[in-house]
Amino acid sequence: MKQHIAERMHGISAFYVMELLQRAKQLEARGRDVIHMEIGEPDFPTPPAVIAAGNRFLRTGEVKYTPAAGLLALREAIADYYHAAGINVDARRIFVTPGASGAFLLAFGISINPGERILMADPCYPCNDNFVRLFGGRSELIPVGADDDYQLSADLIAEHWGAECKGALIASPSNPTGTVIGREALRQAIAKVTELGGCFYSDEIYHGLVYDDAVSSALAFSDKVFVINSFSKFFGMTGWRVGWLVVPEEFIDAAERLAQNIFIATSTQSQYAALASFTPENLAELEARRLEFQRRRDFLCENLPKLGFRIARKPQGAFYVYADSSDLADDSFEFAKELLETQAVAVTPGRDFGVYRADRHIRFAYTASVDRMAAALTRLETFLCR
Amino acid sequence: MKQHIAERMHGISAFYVMELLQRAKQLEARGRDVIHMEIGEPDFPTPPAVIAAGNRFLRTGEVKYTPAAGLLALREAIADYYHAAGINVDARRIFVTPGASGAFLLAFGISINPGERILMADPCYPCNDNFVRLFGGRSELIPVGADDDYQLSADLIAEHWGAECKGALIASPSNPTGTVIGREALRQAIAKVTELGGCFYSDEIYHGLVYDDAVSSALAFSDKVFVINSFSKFFGMTGWRVGWLVVPEEFIDAAERLAQNIFIATSTQSQYAALASFTPENLAELEARRLEFQRRRDFLCENLPKLGFRIARKPQGAFYVYADSSDLADDSFEFAKELLETQAVAVTPGRDFGVYRADRHIRFAYTASVDRMAAALTRLETFLCR
Ligand SMILES: Cc1ncc(COP(=O)(O)O)c(C=O)c1O
Ligand SMILES: Cc1ncc(COP(=O)(O)O)c(C=O)c1O
Repeated sequence: MKQHIAERMHGISAFYVMELLQRAKQLEARGRDVIHMEIGEPDFPTPPAVIAAGNRFLRTGEVKYTPAAGLLALREAIADYYHAAGINVDARRIFVTPGASGAFLLAFGISINPGERILMADPCYPCNDNFVRLFGGRSELIPVGADDDYQLSADLIAEHWGAECKGALIASPSNPTGTVIGREALRQAIAKVTELGGCFYSDEIYHGLVYDDAVSSALAFSDKVFVINSFSKFFGMTGWRVGWLVVPEEFIDAAERLAQNIFIATSTQSQYAALASFTPENLAELEARRLEFQRRRDFLCENLPKLGFRIARKPQGAFYVYADSSDLADDSFEFAKELLETQAVAVTPGRDFGVYRADRHIRFAYTASVDRMAAALTRLETFLCR
Repeated sequence: MKQHIAERMHGISAFYVMELLQRAKQLEARGRDVIHMEIGEPDFPTPPAVIAAGNRFLRTGEVKYTPAAGLLALREAIADYYHAAGINVDARRIFVTPGASGAFLLAFGISINPGERILMADPCYPCNDNFVRLFGGRSELIPVGADDDYQLSADLIAEHWGAECKGALIASPSNPTGTVIGREALRQAIAKVTELGGCFYSDEIYHGLVYDDAVSSALAFSDKVFVINSFSKFFGMTGWRVGWLVVPEEFIDAAERLAQNIFIATSTQSQYAALASFTPENLAELEARRLEFQRRRDFLCENLPKLGFRIARKPQGAFYVYADSSDLADDSFEFAKELLETQAVAVTPGRDFGVYRADRHIRFAYTASVDRMAAALTRLETFLCR
C-alpha cells in the first residue's frame, strides 16, 4: 500500500498555539470574552488608501494573471522604496510573491538541495524549519539567549558551520523576541557567510516596525543576499497575501522559472492595492500605527515585570514580547492552557519557536489595544494569585 | 563556493511560449496588432457578481488571515456544489488554496517522497512535471495519441507501473488537447491505481467548461483520490489566485499542517469573492460564457482543417485545440515563431507540453472572439501561401 503520507510530513508539526486558538474559539462560542495576545497579525484594518486602491482596481473587472515576477510597477515601487532608504536594488532582482511565505518557498526552492543545512536561531519563526524540510534540507537550530540579543552572530555561524551547510537565516526584528541585530553584527554575519561561500537569507518582514534605532536591510551590505519581506505586517495587509523576495543577480533566472511554475503569479488585486502603500498619506498612517505599537510595547515592558515575568532584552521591533515565565511556572505551555481556561487570556507558548528554554518562555503579542492588554494583566494577576 | 542554484532547478525549464509572449509584447510596443491565441486564460472579465462581492468585502477593511484550510463558508459552498452534482464530500476534506497551483503544491507536498514517480500523459500541462520535481520526485511521461483520447487508461497505467511509482495524474478536460476521459475509463483508471496501492490525482480545473457530454469528478468513484480544482477557468477568476484541493480523509491532518506552514492562508478577499460564484445568477452568466466558448471551439474545429491542420480528436472541453501541423511544417516551434514575426498571430508550440510528437503540434487557445480568430485564420492563410 503506497497511499502513504510523505515522510517529510513527519517532521512538520502543527503549531501548539492552534490548540489554544481552537479552545479560545470554543470559549468565545460559549460567551466568554477572550483577550487575544497570541495573534501574530496587526489588529488594525488594512489602511484606507490601500482598500480604496483595491476597490478601484476591482471595478475594472480585469483580474487577470500578472507576470510571474509581479507587476513591473510594483517591483519598481519596491525598488524606489529601497532607494529612498539609500539602497540601490535593480527591480529585476525583486519578485512579488504570495506573502513572505511565498518568498521563502521561492528562495529555498531555488537554493536548497536535499541534505543541506540552514543555520537559524532558536527561538525563531516556526515555519522556517518546515520550509527547509519541504525541500529535503535540515535546519540547524542554534540556541541563542538574551546575551546574543536572541540573534545569530558571525562567531556563532562560524562555530556551527559544517560541510553540509548551505547558509544562514537571520530574522531581525525577530519573531518571537522582537530583538534586532546591530548594524555591525549584521554586516559581520553577512561577511562570514559570504566568506564561507554560503547563502545569506534575511527575513525583514518586521522592518518598519521598529521603535528605537532604525534598522538597515541586509541589502545595504551585500548584493549577494536573499531578502524576504512582505506587505503583511508593517503595511497592514496580512490577508491579501502579498510580499516579495530579492535574489542575487545569478538567481534571477531560476526564480523566474520556479515562480512561473509554482505560483503562476501573485493575486492581481493584492498587487494593485499594495502599489498604493507608498504614498506619503499612507506612510503617515503607518507611522501613526507604529507609534501606537510603540506605546503598547512600552506598556507591556513596564507592566509584565511587575507580575514576575522577566524581559531579559527589551524588544526593539515587531509586536512581540518574549517573556521568561520560569519564576511563575515550570512549563509555559501548561501555564498558557490554564491561563486561557481560567482567565480567557490567550498567549503563545515558547515551544512553538524552538526547544532552547522554550518551556520557560511565553510570547505576548501586542496586537490588542492598551485597554485590552490592561484588562489581560489584571486577569493575569488574579491568575497568579490562585 | 556554495552559493549554487539548487540542482532541481536544472530540470525546471521556462515555457517556450514565454519567448513568444515577450516577442509579442515587443511587436505590440511597435504598434503591431497581435492576435493572441496562446493565452491559457479566459478573455472575459471576472463576473460582475464576484467583483461586487469582492468590493463589498474590501469595504469592511478587515482583510485578515483566514484559517489555513480556508473560510469554512467557502469549503461548505464547494461541498454543496459537489452535492448538487450528486457527490458527497465532507467539507473537512476540502482545502482552499492559492489556485490549482497551490493545490498541486499541497497535494504533492504531503504525498510524494524523493525518488517516487508519478505517471502522467505526454502531452500535458507543463507545470505538472515541475511540481513533482520540486519534491524530489520524477514524472513518467506516457506518450498518448488521438487513439487514447490523449488520456491515460487503466491499461497504460498498469503497463508503466513500477516499484517507484507513487501514483498517476489525469487531467480531464486536458490542457493542451481539450479531450475528456470517458466515465468508464476514468472509473477503471482509478480502480487500477487503487489496486496498485497508489495515489490518484485528478486535475479537474477545466470541469464546467465542457461542450458535449457532462464529465464527472473522480470523487464520484472514490473517496481516496486527490482532486485539484480552481476558480481560475470556469469561474473566470485567474488573477484572484483561489482554488481548492480535496484530499482523502487520512491526508486531512497533513494537509492542514502543510497549508499552515507554506501558505498561512489563501487571499481573504479572493475567498469572499469566490463565495459569490455559486448563485443562480452567476451560474447563468457562466453558462452564457460556456456557450460562447463552444461556438468558438466549433468555429476553429471547422476552419483549421481547411488550412491543412489536422484535428485528430475533437476537443470536448477547456478552451484549446491541439492541432497537428505536420502537413504544414516540420517544426511547430519554428512555425509559431515565424507566424508571430510575419503575421502577428501568437500560438503555443507543442513542445511546451511534452516531447511525444510535440514538434508536430500547435495549441490554439480560443480565448479570443470569433471575429479575432477569423482575422487570425486569414493571416494564417496568407502565411501558408508564402
Ligand atoms: C518572521 C516571519 N516571517 C514570515 C512570516 C510570513 O508572513 P506572510 O506570509 O504573511 O508575509 C511571518 C508571519 O507571521 C513571520 O512572523
Ligand atoms: C491543467 C491545468 N492545471 C492547473 C492550472 C493552474 O491554474 P491556477 O493555479 O490558476 O488555478 C492550469 C493553468 O493554466 C492548467 O491549465
